[in-house]
Amino acid sequence: MPTGVGEPVRAGRAPAGSLTDVNSSVVRVGLLGCGTVGSALVALVDEQRDAIEARAGVRLEIVRVAVRDTTRPRAVSLPDGALTIDGAGLVVDPDVDVVVEVMGGVEPAGALVMAALAAGKPVVTANKELLAVAGPEVFTAAGAAGVDLLFEAAVVGGIPFVRPLRESLLGEPVNRVLGIMNGTTNYILTRMTEGGADYGDALAEAQALGYAEADPTADVEGFDAGAKIAIVASLAFGARVRAGDVACEGISGLAADDIAFAGRHGFVVKLLAVAERFGKADATEVMARVHPVFVPVTHPLASVRGSFNAVFVQGEVVGDLMFYGRGAGGDPTASAVLGDLIDAASNLRVGAHGSLGSFVDLPFRPVDELASAFYLSILAVDQPGVLATVAGVFGRHGVSIASMEQVVPPAGVASSAVGASLEPEREARIDFITHMAGERDVTNTIAELRGLDVVVRVGSVVRVLDDEPDR
Amino acid sequence: MPTGVGEPVRAGRAPAGSLTDVNSSVVRVGLLGCGTVGSALVALVDEQRDAIEARAGVRLEIVRVAVRDTTRPRAVSLPDGALTIDGAGLVVDPDVDVVVEVMGGVEPAGALVMAALAAGKPVVTANKELLAVAGPEVFTAAGAAGVDLLFEAAVVGGIPFVRPLRESLLGEPVNRVLGIMNGTTNYILTRMTEGGADYGDALAEAQALGYAEADPTADVEGFDAGAKIAIVASLAFGARVRAGDVACEGISGLAADDIAFAGRHGFVVKLLAVAERFGKADATEVMARVHPVFVPVTHPLASVRGSFNAVFVQGEVVGDLMFYGRGAGGDPTASAVLGDLIDAASNLRVGAHGSLGSFVDLPFRPVDELASAFYLSILAVDQPGVLATVAGVFGRHGVSIASMEQVVPPAGVASSAVGASLEPEREARIDFITHMAGERDVTNTIAELRGLDVVVRVGSVVRVLDDEPDR
Repeated sequence: MPTGVGEPVRAGRAPAGSLTDVNSSVVRVGLLGCGTVGSALVALVDEQRDAIEARAGVRLEIVRVAVRDTTRPRAVSLPDGALTIDGAGLVVDPDVDVVVEVMGGVEPAGALVMAALAAGKPVVTANKELLAVAGPEVFTAAGAAGVDLLFEAAVVGGIPFVRPLRESLLGEPVNRVLGIMNGTTNYILTRMTEGGADYGDALAEAQALGYAEADPTADVEGFDAGAKIAIVASLAFGARVRAGDVACEGISGLAADDIAFAGRHGFVVKLLAVAERFGKADATEVMARVHPVFVPVTHPLASVRGSFNAVFVQGEVVGDLMFYGRGAGGDPTASAVLGDLIDAASNLRVGAHGSLGSFVDLPFRPVDELASAFYLSILAVDQPGVLATVAGVFGRHGVSIASMEQVVPPAGVASSAVGASLEPEREARIDFITHMAGERDVTNTIAELRGLDVVVRVGSVVRVLDDEPDR
Repeated sequence: MPTGVGEPVRAGRAPAGSLTDVNSSVVRVGLLGCGTVGSALVALVDEQRDAIEARAGVRLEIVRVAVRDTTRPRAVSLPDGALTIDGAGLVVDPDVDVVVEVMGGVEPAGALVMAALAAGKPVVTANKELLAVAGPEVFTAAGAAGVDLLFEAAVVGGIPFVRPLRESLLGEPVNRVLGIMNGTTNYILTRMTEGGADYGDALAEAQALGYAEADPTADVEGFDAGAKIAIVASLAFGARVRAGDVACEGISGLAADDIAFAGRHGFVVKLLAVAERFGKADATEVMARVHPVFVPVTHPLASVRGSFNAVFVQGEVVGDLMFYGRGAGGDPTASAVLGDLIDAASNLRVGAHGSLGSFVDLPFRPVDELASAFYLSILAVDQPGVLATVAGVFGRHGVSIASMEQVVPPAGVASSAVGASLEPEREARIDFITHMAGERDVTNTIAELRGLDVVVRVGSVVRVLDDEPDR
């Protein structure tokens, strides 16, 4: 028996001679938090208890639930006396075999998870915030204790992605991960794409439907997706990557015109969380960031609509993979927690546990050494020679233009030069897509464009996905 | 220690105190077959050996390889004396810890796999044919021996789907699985959709590219996908489903006109393998079959192009999930085999093994009790009253028409009434999409239509996917 801690109530031999378990183990679960996900989990365990016992040989019993207020009425049915306000007591309670943490937030969840691991109890957590800031520490603590730490629900909710990444792809060199990891922004972008809505209207609609919060910052500025891609990058590359290492750019600056231009040129705009590995073995660099991307309509990520999430993985041997589903919501998240809980319970029963492997510090590739094709939108004075001037700036910085479109709004409609003259100058919107270019060169191009008298404004700058998928 | 068989070379305690394994185990692998997948696996293990040891604590050594002809030159590098023609000796060799079967075909692979399991050795197999005809027996043998039987590569090649289904979704009630599980037919359909190609031309192109075999029957008539969905249905529903239980309908009868009609009405045509569960708990029926389907262009399955595969899962709690990637090919398949091999080796090291749960005989829902919306194409004589006559037949069988389109070809082009009269009658193609209708009612409708004098021919009949995905 490899580990001596966290024994199940009736840990016995795995059944031999029959696939139907006759001596299944009761596994006692302590639950930290009983909000949307916790309540959904309690109901799901009640409903599936017998089926799980028949198929996995473990009988799950939720014996303790730590909440902030034990007097609040709850829709779920729990054993008498299960509710407690004492989370610290729950995680060391000898009557708890496995701890499930669905309270969220870095603290006090972090301290409770660490205490549970130190007490030798396997932990299932849905806590993205905690793992994004302290993942490597928590992973190391689980390894030191020799117990399971499972967190399928912490990345993309109900989509089984962490397990395939940890297990199925353990021998696969993963080169890049591209994720639509935030349902709120994907809903907003879908409405802007399919309904022609403005950003503000689409956001208001998402808020009315409960897809976006009153303060939508964490979603729309990319921080939520950034936390998730930090966890994914850690797992995919065996590297220590934290939320603070992820450069985040959101969607609040995107205009309906940008989305429409993308559509005319065969793209949809998606907010992608990107983790990439460069170089081989002893000269590996990594990168993780979040920003809007022009995705070709033929790419599988382009078909991810509404509030759905997806993770696209580019492996060196396996090729392209995609995992699609609900990234949030009580039921899908509870489904992912339950999958982990069954795994932890089954492992406990036979005295095994999964390993997270080791994590090292890998250098981050500097942003200005990255390259991409770019979409840029410029508002310029509509006068002879302007296009040549602007194009000259691109050329001087070695940025090659792949396609260009100029739109002159009807007279009197779109001038921003007020007060300067009696007869305002007309302006033209000029949209470019470049070929592959270095980030530094594009940054310099934009700086010089901003300095031109004829350039009124540099609008959106959006990266373009650099490859069509394989056929 | 739950099982006494198949001990690793240096099975020790799982490491405690560090995530970096200091006492990793050598796991000796016996390989049955060394064709495309086997060779790719040998190369991949060589390349990834150190990385796998660092992350999983097992050092994989391929010590025996059974082939038909040991004298054939091989591109892979193997230890001296590793090649043998004695597969039966390999599977009981005490120097082999894990058996990997990539020879394919029901026999002799089946006997070798059963012998390996009986000898207490974990087995990793990529053998779809074997599991589709004898899955329940092989699963039971693995359970009786108390060892791992892993077969990620047997269903959709490189896509991690079997593991998520077996583990992540073990507590999830799966209602339906829709799979694009055959790359050959998906390539052909993509060419017909995007290039307007005829079936024959698209098939010839697929053959020229090596995507289709000289005799394409197993692919184009749906038998390959049928074998895969039998395995998936077994796992998803815990039921004994074999290839022979799957009704297969292929794509060879589809015409370019059918594909074009689909496109005009917002659909793409896909060959789907479908497994469905009806009813609850003690009154469950199942169904598994393969046939072309009109898929709405907004559905994620519609974006699966070329030779890619995907599996769409509808769970009661988790909602819609999709898994996408390469369903075949040496490298993707080897990647899936390697994921399983690492899992089996890691489990051996700690004396654990995965369980497949139990399988029961569930009744199959009779085909004529199923319901679907349908596309039907009819060639009729172009004369007054024909449409009313035809529509009357639908109405008499309770089949309600959702949309209809009539195309009269230019005069003299498309008459099939030769010799009967000096002035051939003109014909019209009439395409219908029905609302949801019982299969029995549609079958009866078609039979009556065939009996009408004004109906020249009933062409394609294709089911229509009954739901838009959630948003």
